Amino acid sequence: MTAQDYVALTPDTLAQRLGTLPQLAERVGPAEGWKVREVGDGNLNLVFIVEGANGAAVVKQALPYVRLVGESWPLPLRRSFFEYNALIRQEARDPGSVPEVFHFDEAQAIVVMEFLQPHVILRQALIEGRRVADLGERLGLFCARTLFRGSDLSLPAPAKKADTALFAGNVELCDITENLIFSDPYFDAPMNRHTPGLDGIVARLRGDLSLKVAAQHLKMAFTSRAETLLHGDLHTGSVMVTGTETRVIDPEFATYGPIGFDVGMLIGNFLMAYFSQPGHEGHAGERAGHQDWLLGTAATIWEVFAAEFAHLWRSERRGILHQASLYEDQGHALASEQALSDVLGQVWRDTLGFCGIEMHRRILSLAHNADFEKIADEGRRAECEARTLAMGRQLMLGAGAIHGMDAVIAMARRMDKENHL
Amino acid sequence: MTAQDYVALTPDTLAQRLGTLPQLAERVGPAEGWKVREVGDGNLNLVFIVEGANGAAVVKQALPYVRLVGESWPLPLRRSFFEYNALIRQEARDPGSVPEVFHFDEAQAIVVMEFLQPHVILRQALIEGRRVADLGERLGLFCARTLFRGSDLSLPAPAKKADTALFAGNVELCDITENLIFSDPYFDAPMNRHTPGLDGIVARLRGDLSLKVAAQHLKMAFTSRAETLLHGDLHTGSVMVTGTETRVIDPEFATYGPIGFDVGMLIGNFLMAYFSQPGHEGHAGERAGHQDWLLGTAATIWEVFAAEFAHLWRSERRGILHQASLYEDQGHALASEQALSDVLGQVWRDTLGFCGIEMHRRILSLAHNADFEKIADEGRRAECEARTLAMGRQLMLGAGAIHGMDAVIAMARRMDKENHL
Repeated sequence: MTAQDYVALTPDTLAQRLGTLPQLAERVGPAEGWKVREVGDGNLNLVFIVEGANGAAVVKQALPYVRLVGESWPLPLRRSFFEYNALIRQEARDPGSVPEVFHFDEAQAIVVMEFLQPHVILRQALIEGRRVADLGERLGLFCARTLFRGSDLSLPAPAKKADTALFAGNVELCDITENLIFSDPYFDAPMNRHTPGLDGIVARLRGDLSLKVAAQHLKMAFTSRAETLLHGDLHTGSVMVTGTETRVIDPEFATYGPIGFDVGMLIGNFLMAYFSQPGHEGHAGERAGHQDWLLGTAATIWEVFAAEFAHLWRSERRGILHQASLYEDQGHALASEQALSDVLGQVWRDTLGFCGIEMHRRILSLAHNADFEKIADEGRRAECEARTLAMGRQLMLGAGAIHGMDAVIAMARRMDKENHL
Repeated sequence: MTAQDYVALTPDTLAQRLGTLPQLAERVGPAEGWKVREVGDGNLNLVFIVEGANGAAVVKQALPYVRLVGESWPLPLRRSFFEYNALIRQEARDPGSVPEVFHFDEAQAIVVMEFLQPHVILRQALIEGRRVADLGERLGLFCARTLFRGSDLSLPAPAKKADTALFAGNVELCDITENLIFSDPYFDAPMNRHTPGLDGIVARLRGDLSLKVAAQHLKMAFTSRAETLLHGDLHTGSVMVTGTETRVIDPEFATYGPIGFDVGMLIGNFLMAYFSQPGHEGHAGERAGHQDWLLGTAATIWEVFAAEFAHLWRSERRGILHQASLYEDQGHALASEQALSDVLGQVWRDTLGFCGIEMHRRILSLAHNADFEKIADEGRRAECEARTLAMGRQLMLGAGAIHGMDAVIAMARRMDKENHL
């Protein structure tokens, strides 16, 4: 079957087309009894839930264009290939963290996978003020394990180079990141939009030369520093949760990049959840407890990430960097700890930078967050967004001078009380 | 033809096997009159000079093992593929800087190219105390043009990602670099050797934890920072010269890596030429003028590199980084200059680090330099090498604090007068 044979699924054709697939029939039951519904609410793909006598599964199919925009913005089907390849690596590196993959059809750009139920999208839960047990721990572990184990600290060099080459093919999705995150926020790009009340602060940010330069240095880090396999789009919309379970989905933006990229984007989305809470309050202070929990979760993500990264460094550093043959085997365990501290320090600074730029692009560029979008009152929304923009700037420019999550949290609490419009 | 059909050429079979190749017959003349001699004195390959009625050409063929070591160290033939691909890109990016390629045969791992005559290997000329007009200028331009034009500052993103993926396949030659340059010097690796009188300083260096850690950070930069297409082995043995012309050869180690890698390795080899001169003197001070010229050439390499890089930054920055749409088009030309200064600053620090480690590995690891090896008196050789090792350490650990070539030159002059044994 060639790419020319690609046909988009519909709820009506799905059972006929996939009904004979043993991987699906096994989990869902005979195709005659299937109930199929399309539930994709993301920006890019078709997502079907298939339910039958024995269970359910998700069928995700890429569309040859950006769903959010339409056929005028074509996007190659092979992003499905990268999503599949990322999912199986994430499962191997942090078992249980992602949906189990049952089947992949490259030509049809279809991934058949586990139906996560009763999971909901984390972002929606956070907007509603709901909590998830062990959320920060789980996400911190996911970051540490996938990012460490995809790097030259862990993989054999040929495997890491082969994967770097493989995922370098994810050109079009990287192009989205490169434009929407790293450049568009800082000038009047055609697809940009922002809440009207922000015009003043937006003009100030776009007139800020050092900020633009910092953004471009982060862009160079993204395009050049092939440190590890990134999820590539690790925001709270790429996480599904129950009250007690956390799973990561949608790694179609996967590419090799800097370790701090995923961690920074993730923490940035928690900080946005934090700054958006006043916009969802019925009365002032109603969400204060939830805000505390959000900041605590952001801190936990970093702390668990750093602790697990250090644990993996000490226990399974088998790659070509910082080899035990140079350090521990020579009686120089202190060199190993010195190097770990240096590496985590660099990841920390990168994390803050990517965190800050994510907070900018979600307010200034094309793809906005429901955290803010669902604040109906534009004036309140602008207030929340302005604080977020101010903090994003400080993280991007101050990355070298901010020495821990305590400082980040103190900064967020202070800015949450200020007017940055 | 498959890889299984590979057969190494010999002077006797070459005319028969390649005689019908029009690209060769055209330049050399009819095969009946060919004179063929094998002249490869490098570590890896067969090199034939083919002379005929109309002219001459070089036929370079990879061997399936490391020539320096023998069949016990296999090395894939496809390094020839990477050499060919690097040569044609270098020619496009800095026309006239490399031998013209006439023909490439992937299965036979053969590159047929221009015979450079009366060129000699630069290293040999430097050992003999000979000068080359415009050498530093030419090498500085080569570095700036090839390194800028292979990066995200210049190439379209899909082309840069495709080349990153392509050259990520050069696994085995990267493996040599990763081991011989970045790790072996800093512990008692099996293939290491060093001049006997160096035992003391070698022990001190291998006991120096911060130095080892710095070496590993440089290794991570090499394996992760896919900034541009490197030559990958840019030492004075990879340069051919006459009294007035300079050409760069042998890019089979080509891979994507940090901009400073080529520049640092190159300057490191000039510093080694400098420190080795006293070992070639008939009487004390005989080579003082040549030493001055070597340091001046090293300085010129950096200065011309930086000036040309800045020129290309200002005149043909058409890639996805530091776009004019963000800077100049917004009236923010100052941001462009600020970013250029930041980028060159990072390249400078990287250059010093790679320069330092190159100076170590050529004395401590497997592949030594003729500059030192040809000093017959082991005591004098050890003195020269010890100064080189001392300076290498200072460059690696002091990269952030050394603010220009003047400081590097002053350091070299001082160390050349000291005893570091």
